[in-house]
Amino acid sequence: MGKFKTDLDTRARVLAEALPYIQDFHGEKIVIKFGGSIMENSDLKQSVAEDIVLLQYIGLKPLVVHGGGKAIGSTLKKMGIDSRFIEGQRVTDAETMEVVEMVLAGRVNKDIVEKINRAGARAIGLSGKDGQMLQAVPLKNCSKVEVDLGQVGEVEKVNPLPLELLEENYYVPVIAPIGVDRSGVTYNMNADYVAGSLAASLTARRLIFLTDVPGIIADGELLSSLDASGVEDLISREIIAGGMVPKATAGCQALEGGVEKTHIIDGSRPHSLLLELLTDQGIGTQIVDESRTYER
Amino acid sequence: MGKFKTDLDTRARVLAEALPYIQDFHGEKIVIKFGGSIMENSDLKQSVAEDIVLLQYIGLKPLVVHGGGKAIGSTLKKMGIDSRFIEGQRVTDAETMEVVEMVLAGRVNKDIVEKINRAGARAIGLSGKDGQMLQAVPLKNCSKVEVDLGQVGEVEKVNPLPLELLEENYYVPVIAPIGVDRSGVTYNMNADYVAGSLAASLTARRLIFLTDVPGIIADGELLSSLDASGVEDLISREIIAGGMVPKATAGCQALEGGVEKTHIIDGSRPHSLLLELLTDQGIGTQIVDESRTYER
Amino acid sequence: MGKFKTDLDTRARVLAEALPYIQDFHGEKIVIKFGGSIMENSDLKQSVAEDIVLLQYIGLKPLVVHGGGKAIGSTLKKMGIDSRFIEGQRVTDAETMEVVEMVLAGRVNKDIVEKINRAGARAIGLSGKDGQMLQAVPLKNCSKVEVDLGQVGEVEKVNPLPLELLEENYYVPVIAPIGVDRSGVTYNMNADYVAGSLAASLTARRLIFLTDVPGIIADGELLSSLDASGVEDLISREIIAGGMVPKATAGCQALEGGVEKTHIIDGSRPHSLLLELLTDQGIGTQIVDESRTYER
Amino acid sequence: MGKFKTDLDTRARVLAEALPYIQDFHGEKIVIKFGGSIMENSDLKQSVAEDIVLLQYIGLKPLVVHGGGKAIGSTLKKMGIDSRFIEGQRVTDAETMEVVEMVLAGRVNKDIVEKINRAGARAIGLSGKDGQMLQAVPLKNCSKVEVDLGQVGEVEKVNPLPLELLEENYYVPVIAPIGVDRSGVTYNMNADYVAGSLAASLTARRLIFLTDVPGIIADGELLSSLDASGVEDLISREIIAGGMVPKATAGCQALEGGVEKTHIIDGSRPHSLLLELLTDQGIGTQIVDESRTYER
Amino acid sequence: MGKFKTDLDTRARVLAEALPYIQDFHGEKIVIKFGGSIMENSDLKQSVAEDIVLLQYIGLKPLVVHGGGKAIGSTLKKMGIDSRFIEGQRVTDAETMEVVEMVLAGRVNKDIVEKINRAGARAIGLSGKDGQMLQAVPLKNCSKVEVDLGQVGEVEKVNPLPLELLEENYYVPVIAPIGVDRSGVTYNMNADYVAGSLAASLTARRLIFLTDVPGIIADGELLSSLDASGVEDLISREIIAGGMVPKATAGCQALEGGVEKTHIIDGSRPHSLLLELLTDQGIGTQIVDESRTYER
Amino acid sequence: MGKFKTDLDTRARVLAEALPYIQDFHGEKIVIKFGGSIMENSDLKQSVAEDIVLLQYIGLKPLVVHGGGKAIGSTLKKMGIDSRFIEGQRVTDAETMEVVEMVLAGRVNKDIVEKINRAGARAIGLSGKDGQMLQAVPLKNCSKVEVDLGQVGEVEKVNPLPLELLEENYYVPVIAPIGVDRSGVTYNMNADYVAGSLAASLTARRLIFLTDVPGIIADGELLSSLDASGVEDLISREIIAGGMVPKATAGCQALEGGVEKTHIIDGSRPHSLLLELLTDQGIGTQIVDESRTYER
Repeated sequence: MGKFKTDLDTRARVLAEALPYIQDFHGEKIVIKFGGSIMENSDLKQSVAEDIVLLQYIGLKPLVVHGGGKAIGSTLKKMGIDSRFIEGQRVTDAETMEVVEMVLAGRVNKDIVEKINRAGARAIGLSGKDGQMLQAVPLKNCSKVEVDLGQVGEVEKVNPLPLELLEENYYVPVIAPIGVDRSGVTYNMNADYVAGSLAASLTARRLIFLTDVPGIIADGELLSSLDASGVEDLISREIIAGGMVPKATAGCQALEGGVEKTHIIDGSRPHSLLLELLTDQGIGTQIVDESRTYER
Repeated sequence: MGKFKTDLDTRARVLAEALPYIQDFHGEKIVIKFGGSIMENSDLKQSVAEDIVLLQYIGLKPLVVHGGGKAIGSTLKKMGIDSRFIEGQRVTDAETMEVVEMVLAGRVNKDIVEKINRAGARAIGLSGKDGQMLQAVPLKNCSKVEVDLGQVGEVEKVNPLPLELLEENYYVPVIAPIGVDRSGVTYNMNADYVAGSLAASLTARRLIFLTDVPGIIADGELLSSLDASGVEDLISREIIAGGMVPKATAGCQALEGGVEKTHIIDGSRPHSLLLELLTDQGIGTQIVDESRTYER
Repeated sequence: MGKFKTDLDTRARVLAEALPYIQDFHGEKIVIKFGGSIMENSDLKQSVAEDIVLLQYIGLKPLVVHGGGKAIGSTLKKMGIDSRFIEGQRVTDAETMEVVEMVLAGRVNKDIVEKINRAGARAIGLSGKDGQMLQAVPLKNCSKVEVDLGQVGEVEKVNPLPLELLEENYYVPVIAPIGVDRSGVTYNMNADYVAGSLAASLTARRLIFLTDVPGIIADGELLSSLDASGVEDLISREIIAGGMVPKATAGCQALEGGVEKTHIIDGSRPHSLLLELLTDQGIGTQIVDESRTYER
Repeated sequence: MGKFKTDLDTRARVLAEALPYIQDFHGEKIVIKFGGSIMENSDLKQSVAEDIVLLQYIGLKPLVVHGGGKAIGSTLKKMGIDSRFIEGQRVTDAETMEVVEMVLAGRVNKDIVEKINRAGARAIGLSGKDGQMLQAVPLKNCSKVEVDLGQVGEVEKVNPLPLELLEENYYVPVIAPIGVDRSGVTYNMNADYVAGSLAASLTARRLIFLTDVPGIIADGELLSSLDASGVEDLISREIIAGGMVPKATAGCQALEGGVEKTHIIDGSRPHSLLLELLTDQGIGTQIVDESRTYER
Repeated sequence: MGKFKTDLDTRARVLAEALPYIQDFHGEKIVIKFGGSIMENSDLKQSVAEDIVLLQYIGLKPLVVHGGGKAIGSTLKKMGIDSRFIEGQRVTDAETMEVVEMVLAGRVNKDIVEKINRAGARAIGLSGKDGQMLQAVPLKNCSKVEVDLGQVGEVEKVNPLPLELLEENYYVPVIAPIGVDRSGVTYNMNADYVAGSLAASLTARRLIFLTDVPGIIADGELLSSLDASGVEDLISREIIAGGMVPKATAGCQALEGGVEKTHIIDGSRPHSLLLELLTDQGIGTQIVDESRTYER
Repeated sequence: MGKFKTDLDTRARVLAEALPYIQDFHGEKIVIKFGGSIMENSDLKQSVAEDIVLLQYIGLKPLVVHGGGKAIGSTLKKMGIDSRFIEGQRVTDAETMEVVEMVLAGRVNKDIVEKINRAGARAIGLSGKDGQMLQAVPLKNCSKVEVDLGQVGEVEKVNPLPLELLEENYYVPVIAPIGVDRSGVTYNMNADYVAGSLAASLTARRLIFLTDVPGIIADGELLSSLDASGVEDLISREIIAGGMVPKATAGCQALEGGVEKTHIIDGSRPHSLLLELLTDQGIGTQIVDESRTYER
């Protein structure tokens, strides 16, 4: 009986804490980048899909962006096409691009769509070609060595109208990071940066990266919050490194574009999206704008 | 660290359980009858007011009905007016009626309004005279002895338009149980029955009685759910007795009028409204319609 | 037959004169302060209520403000509470305030509501607590002697939203002059000034004080029109004195707030509201803005 | 002073009597047939135009129908065209028809339009050809002798859409009684019957014939009210005769089509329209539906 | 078979060329001045009416302006009224004005209305008196000799509201060039200038003059395009002369008022309106704004 | 000059003939199945894309359905996966299905989207998984031999909401014939039948199959029109055979579902869509409903 009472009190406290967030997020857009093990683990993917449906239940308008490097690699291999990587980027010739597009827009995208639909929402999968949503240019070469990455691109301009139309009508857009230029050339793009561009372009309230780690870790400790200058500093000290660099950088760019906060969280923890958005303390790392006052 | 993890899992579970209810109740009306110790305890009243604001945050449209027997009694006493009670009803002559109206519509009502406003919502207090909302007739005499209760009345017809106008515009109506007939005579009415009539007339989703007890108790055990025939049986066996009779009866009438469920809960338990509405197991007694299938 | 013809011509002339006013006032708000003998005479009150309904018939949006000094006095007396007056103001301690609120918001207010409803309109009675409509501060002490008037207040800010909602939906708001501050303290306020603040806040077209005298009288003659400097002059010469001072002062403040004209008329003359608003010559005193051109 | 007071009381009484009618007629359509001396007397025509503007001020939607026999006659004479009349109908050959159309649609119509515009409203003059509003067929021969009246027609079908469009937008339509059949043949029609057809087709609230006489007179006395069987009886007894027959007959037909009342009044009396519509006793003859209960 | 194929290719090419124009003109207003032989030839008038209906089919909003000099002349003659002309203008005394108005607004106007209606659209004929649409002043005397032209006027101000109302509701307005001043005096106006004023006032996309000649011809050659300075030059050299002067001048004024292009075309050529608006090369003379870039 | 005149007359005639069709089709949906050589010929595909844009210009709402057998075959070959065909159907195991989905939804679909976008419209490509648009069941085995075709399916139910949303907002949906059942299994479906199901489900006005042949040919002659019984007869006589069977059958099914006509035309002829829809005689075979009256 004592235990029961405690339990009720906890429930009451959790609910009373969450309801103001629920009000606050009502009708707001959030961009969720799928990454890490949830891309390979079908049960995990289904479980995140269910959380997306729960978020839609309480009035949020989620949008999903995904990559798909592993699936691309295995298909290329089956087709006997070799890939060369320069500084982490896959050199993408026309034949490779065709496979990248097929795998991302035709298979990975539709698999996520199907899982969200099965969880009870209504997802629609698009690539950046649809409605000319992601206009691309070749990736500017930031390397010291002269390299030709082929059809590797970056976002030049987002046309948010198709996404706004879908979100207003309670569809969950699922976006493959494929871009196109004015002459019709297709581009392979980094999904983290695409997520950041979309979040800024839609003025999403939050941008959330689902990863395999608890957040940004320095000296063995999870950083619960940092700002753009903190991110810059940690990148220069190579504490933020590897695949975390585009996430942290895109997160800062999204903030400049009007997004309130970027979150980097462990997508494999059950209900990680709910915990990060609806509790006072959150679970991962949030990147905030130092010049801005947060109510919470 | 282990404790922390447990805590996060609990939070995640509570939230995942609550969100479907939150969606389900979005935009729905609920009628809440204030009673028992919350009427006398200012802190408790303020705390219930805060829960009402939380419910409004997640899209519910709450409406409050209140009585005020104790406050009436003490004012009558100060004015040197004696009251006679017949079978629990205060015999209400013209002089008494004037005091009843003043106390209910002028003081108790405005006190609740002020507390809800202070908690962050926008409350508006009305009596049944406003907008001719509660049209009354003298209470039908159900007693064996011939008695004249004076201006004691019951609801003949509810005009829900002013309430719908307020609710659509996100005001919380607070209603004093004063009625009026066509010739302008004022009536004192039982607040439990008024709550039931309003719930039916507005086709509220739920009717909730806040009391001082955990619910309906039989043989020392809280009954978590019963239906109209169960209520009838318990009244005939005088297990439901005293002030619980009008609550249970009005609760059944509300169900006939289209209300989904009536709840009788302990208003003095913290966040009792949230626990009853947003968790699977609830905390008090619910009265349900046996002929109806409930999803949950 | 001759008489009949004359009569028809008079009728025709009255109607032809009134119709342009009727057009001009269509959809406009007017604030009517109830005062004087109509507060004590039930038939007179009913008759003014009927004129309010007629005004609503032709498209005006009336709002009523009332005081209730006599009813407060008699209830305080019944409860054995003495009142002290300083310069015409009732010293209002917590116990007195409770009675003032009960009487104004619970009895006088609902009585006017009921009379307007019976005349065929739809009235809704509110106090300044409802929707936090009248935010109050303690009355600034303008006296030479240091006095503590207790919970006597004045309007700091009006929240007109609830009134606009009611008026747009063809309800007649009836307002008791009770205010509240942010910490929830209740204030007793002068109804004339409340009427002026409401008229300005709603940008009512006209503010009308119903009194027991034909208007402002100087040297035994009714002044049909004067402006703010005229009012100031007459107050300094104590020709405007006593209860006429707050009316004239509030009337000038309303003009500053955008109200077109203030009228002080004899509410006991049959159809005084119609005569003042719908005929060329009017019946009482109007206060006008000297810097403004009136079409008529 | 006594006189003044009486005058105020009369004004008050006239206004209080008129306001309920004003409310009752708000937004309602009335069809006014111009006839008799107002067609020849420019001042009288201007004065009726001013009353039409007053009616529009208080929310009525007036529509004017006119004839123009005298103006047609004088133009035909100037052009040296003779007219033959059979039982009061002008035999209308093609040459005559051309003149009838020119005079009615081009001169009489535009003159009324100009007068209403000058009085302050916005009139638009149309003939039955505009928007194919009045579809006509040759007048059925009711005579005993075989006669060919030429292009004399009657209304087969009204297309009310252009009129509803104009009235919704606060224009006063002014209609010349010219019809057209499917092959494009033009017809001369009786303006009284056209007024009746338009009133029925628009479900106007009232149909008013402005004439030179006080109404229908029997045995030297003005009949203030009669019904269809009364009309029939008076026609058979030739008490209703000459130009009053089409008015009374069209008035009965309008009632069958849903019009509430038809009025036949003396258009030369000042403000006759106001007196008939806004006073209890009226001034002329009203034709009512015996099977219908009138509130007044 | 070869011939058939050729034919299909031509059709395909004509359609592919026309569709972008059809899109471009969707919902746009065009003002069409009827003139020349189509005013005298009933079949030609019917055929132009049919093209107007086709234009309405594809979403254009046509408005027709007409004159009627020959019909006025013949009626004046029948009535034995002589006309004097000064520099091409008919001296218009009151008696003449009455005939001009009757013929234009009562006969010519209604004849065009009837033809458009018969072709399948919904036309409504108005004069400038209707809705006080064409406010006029006496024509400024540009002559060297002092002359009094009587009631000859020019447009002072256009009130486009009635026309916009009709066009939004898919009626085709047909306008007689009759104006009125504030004191109610009627004016006879040049239809070409009225067409130009209406086109500018409605910001029509195009103004089209239907004439009897292929366009503006210089040195025996049709000029396909010229601008305002070209027009001025040709007028000064009297290459543009006679009835072409008001067309070209009004066309330039329309351009200043925001009209995109003015066209002067041969209205007697079958489907001339379609050819001018929906093909690349057009058929007549277009007057364009030199300071403006045209997409085509 | 003569030639020029003839040319203008032809143009005028083609336009006058086309405009009524343009009106008639305004706002109507048409479903266009891409097939045959336009799938392999990039210039031809671009040219059809341009016609689709022209149709959208004049108010039609086109929707494109495509297959992609050749592209699937070549990718399977590259990946070393063999296909077995039973009665023209590709046996589709899980590995094959993954390739089919990738190629259709990821490559062929996006290529058509890109071409329509480049031509000036706004296309959005979807598969039947998006918004659960095409709910599928395994294809019922109509063969005499027991065969297992694997994941070959047919449409069980269409959810038209996402398509209606896109069409209302002027997007051109491009649909890959991939279906999904409730448990998430993916199906490969015949694009002709999918086109028929979509046309019926959207109540498209027309269903058009773009092929490589002029239409249905019997005895060396193009049949310009036939009905369902004609189709049945020709199938039984094997005059309609091979790939024409599903087109003709799906066309008949669309008619049953409310589509007005099905067209089978040669997509390689320039502007074939325009010629079939906007000229009296058309170019291919139309399947009509014998029980229906066609205006044309």
